[in-house]
Amino acid sequence: MAKITGINHIALVVPEMEQALKFWRDILGLPLQGVNDVPEQASRIAFLPAGAGEVELLQPTTPDSGVAKFLQKRGPGIHHVCFETDDLDGMIDLLKGKGVRLIGEKPSTGAGGKRMIFVHPESAGGVLVELYESA
Amino acid sequence: MAKITGINHIALVVPEMEQALKFWRDILGLPLQGVNDVPEQASRIAFLPAGAGEVELLQPTTPDSGVAKFLQKRGPGIHHVCFETDDLDGMIDLLKGKGVRLIGEKPSTGAGGKRMIFVHPESAGGVLVELYESA
Repeated sequence: MAKITGINHIALVVPEMEQALKFWRDILGLPLQGVNDVPEQASRIAFLPAGAGEVELLQPTTPDSGVAKFLQKRGPGIHHVCFETDDLDGMIDLLKGKGVRLIGEKPSTGAGGKRMIFVHPESAGGVLVELYESA
Repeated sequence: MAKITGINHIALVVPEMEQALKFWRDILGLPLQGVNDVPEQASRIAFLPAGAGEVELLQPTTPDSGVAKFLQKRGPGIHHVCFETDDLDGMIDLLKGKGVRLIGEKPSTGAGGKRMIFVHPESAGGVLVELYESA
């Protein structure tokens, strides 16, 4: 049966990338893998590995995306947590079978070829949960 | 130099533990290590391992604790993220030297003997960051 195998990353919404990097990279010392504009997510995105996991920084680049609205409503902070599963399709079937609300019917594929889906916060105690298939 | 070695856990504030366990344990399938009343944190606390990391569920047990106020103000969701460092005292010196605001002057010791300190969200882009010393 599909299972969760770990925490892949936590994602933080930040108003301004360079300002955020002053804490996460320059003070806390996390290595920066690079900053990329990702128009399909209306964000500038940075990943900073932390051991087996990563910190993702999300800076909205349009005023009307979900990330931008989150920032306007709640202020900067933790946006979502991403878990890895050994079987994404199996996990999706399992969640649907239990009545869990997903965002989108099918997994999408990110720039790195990773398959992913989000669980709606209303099904996960107010937490936006992302699921990745383990490499 | 002291460095971050990984993500230890993410902590979620929940209004009611049994209701929260229906998603995290029963649906997502994370194993439950046990639920403990921790009066010094004014919370019922559950840990559910997820690979190398853990999910911590925090249910406030008094109306006036920091966790209770977080729940009242922001609703259920992600409360903090805890990173591991290979040298907690060295990391504290490093953070203080960079002007980072910590919660408390010195690390405290948890029930399991783990030494920990919190970074104030105002120094970490709105994120409440906990630091554990690696085992």
